[in-house]
Amino acid sequence: MSEVKAYAAKKESGDLSQIEIERRETTKDDVAIEITYCGVCHSDIHTVQNDWGGAMYPVVPGHEIIGRVTRVGDNVKDFKKGDLVGVGCMVDSCQTCASCKEDLEQYCENGATMTYNGEDKHLGGHTFGGYSESIVVNQKFVLTIPENLDEKAVAPLLCAGITTYSPLRQWDVKKGDKVGVIGLGGLGHMGIKFAHAMGAHVVMITTSPGKAEDAKKLGADEVLISKNEEEMEKHANSFDFLLNTIPVGHDTNPYINLLKRDATMVLVGAIEPLDPIHGGGLVLKRKRLAGSLIGGIKETQEMLDFCGEHDIVSDVEMIDIEEINTAYTRVKDNDVKYRFVIDMKSLKES
Amino acid sequence: MSEVKAYAAKKESGDLSQIEIERRETTKDDVAIEITYCGVCHSDIHTVQNDWGGAMYPVVPGHEIIGRVTRVGDNVKDFKKGDLVGVGCMVDSCQTCASCKEDLEQYCENGATMTYNGEDKHLGGHTFGGYSESIVVNQKFVLTIPENLDEKAVAPLLCAGITTYSPLRQWDVKKGDKVGVIGLGGLGHMGIKFAHAMGAHVVMITTSPGKAEDAKKLGADEVLISKNEEEMEKHANSFDFLLNTIPVGHDTNPYINLLKRDATMVLVGAIEPLDPIHGGGLVLKRKRLAGSLIGGIKETQEMLDFCGEHDIVSDVEMIDIEEINTAYTRVKDNDVKYRFVIDMKSLKES
Repeated sequence: MSEVKAYAAKKESGDLSQIEIERRETTKDDVAIEITYCGVCHSDIHTVQNDWGGAMYPVVPGHEIIGRVTRVGDNVKDFKKGDLVGVGCMVDSCQTCASCKEDLEQYCENGATMTYNGEDKHLGGHTFGGYSESIVVNQKFVLTIPENLDEKAVAPLLCAGITTYSPLRQWDVKKGDKVGVIGLGGLGHMGIKFAHAMGAHVVMITTSPGKAEDAKKLGADEVLISKNEEEMEKHANSFDFLLNTIPVGHDTNPYINLLKRDATMVLVGAIEPLDPIHGGGLVLKRKRLAGSLIGGIKETQEMLDFCGEHDIVSDVEMIDIEEINTAYTRVKDNDVKYRFVIDMKSLKES
Repeated sequence: MSEVKAYAAKKESGDLSQIEIERRETTKDDVAIEITYCGVCHSDIHTVQNDWGGAMYPVVPGHEIIGRVTRVGDNVKDFKKGDLVGVGCMVDSCQTCASCKEDLEQYCENGATMTYNGEDKHLGGHTFGGYSESIVVNQKFVLTIPENLDEKAVAPLLCAGITTYSPLRQWDVKKGDKVGVIGLGGLGHMGIKFAHAMGAHVVMITTSPGKAEDAKKLGADEVLISKNEEEMEKHANSFDFLLNTIPVGHDTNPYINLLKRDATMVLVGAIEPLDPIHGGGLVLKRKRLAGSLIGGIKETQEMLDFCGEHDIVSDVEMIDIEEINTAYTRVKDNDVKYRFVIDMKSLKES
């Protein structure tokens, strides 16, 4: 191990190009993975551009990682060389706080170690993600990938998948519920697939009439154009649950108006200030607004097993690593159906 | 019945003065009540001033009504002449929708009839509230008042009481929970009393250090001054529940920061646009924001019985009806501890 090839962003340009990085040796609790595929998440771009602050350069993004086990430490019993595995947004957490004990490592009171741009407890400095030949991860943060699924298309499940699956489970979406998925992108297309597989009546809510046909192919029963005030009013007070995947600040009031009494809208994308919410929209029918962040490791495995049973993967467009900068531009233009995945062979060949 | 004396606001001035109004005859399901006391709620002022739009003049405010039964219809079995009873914010609802069937008449899908400024189904026009000699109400909307309580101080329980009791119950506040009550006014002082009686560790959260002593007398275990950023940070991510009684739009972000993972802040006062909420504040620890509106009739009776058992009443300042305009000014100046109650004898004598 130690020196491996990776693709990273430099502070000056935000463009990604090849560098050498260090990976730690495999400790007794570690799994070493040769990365075969890595999804391209909008968070990668936010970090590379330092949109949220706190970016540590060089940034090696990538937290939708698929690969094959190459080596395991002595304490590792659940994984062996050759296994198809995944790594998501986290590679470590304290394992002792209340959240970790409830299998909610993403809410670790002491701060989970994120897969990239996190504090590296082993080598010092910061963690490097999956735009790389290989990765070494503590066994508790390694996921088993069902072998019946197309592994290329599994990669985005590790972030876009669990981010949408977790709130649907947490808020107990079930057969017959009227569920709205707001926004059709990487997260939204997974939200439709999951809500449909859970037996809900799924309404895709989008500003773009052009997305209607696609939404129905993905499993939506109806499409509601949010710019159409008359249609929005027809659906007022009728939704059991809303999954809001819009990735930027926006006016949530028209969506809150769609909720039934006591129903919840969950934000999974907008980590930004929202337009002013009218208190009356919540008070008058005891409505609820919440947020949700990815999911814990146990639930991520449950999600992957659910995908194995229901034959669910992401819709992906494959790229070579050299195309990454173009892919970023297209993600920002919302021009991908619905997730870019990097074939990491292209890194070895480059 | 029919013509009775009341105090009403005219459109031009917003000042209240004596008028004659019509009350319906007692139908077979009705209870006629001679009003002894009526609380002064901030909503009365909002309506008189038409702050929320939709005010129908003359406005006879008052929805914290205490009185004695003077007459009952043939179908009325639970009330008899001389009983001490109360009427809150509602006097009717459809009784057939999903919300009514769940004893949540305040969320009636067809719109509950509010005690004043509502559509009068019997006489046409609009309903007149409790700043009046008497009222005639369908038996389903009449509450039994525990005789061991001071009836003057019970009046505010019918709105300020149930508005704070209901969310504490809905969100299952229990012994040992760390509960914050934000804002010390008519609602907030009841929130402290209830949360304390439910066994919670109660923190009064206020901008005014001057309210600390009073808050502790009311049952608060701690006082947190929201302007003190250092103190606010010490309490970050520590509250199981927050009851937000601030009656106007405000910045909710510092309060959301106080919630534990998965905990909820409920708005009961701010029926106005809130300052922009940062989505990250909800997402990063799966926090929740909700609203709550008064409570259903069944729960209002439960609240009154709870007050009877725990000897809970409102802290009140008694006024005669002629003092109502001054009282309004003082409520607007937040200069009352903590609720004005009108002695309705003064109306008869005037």
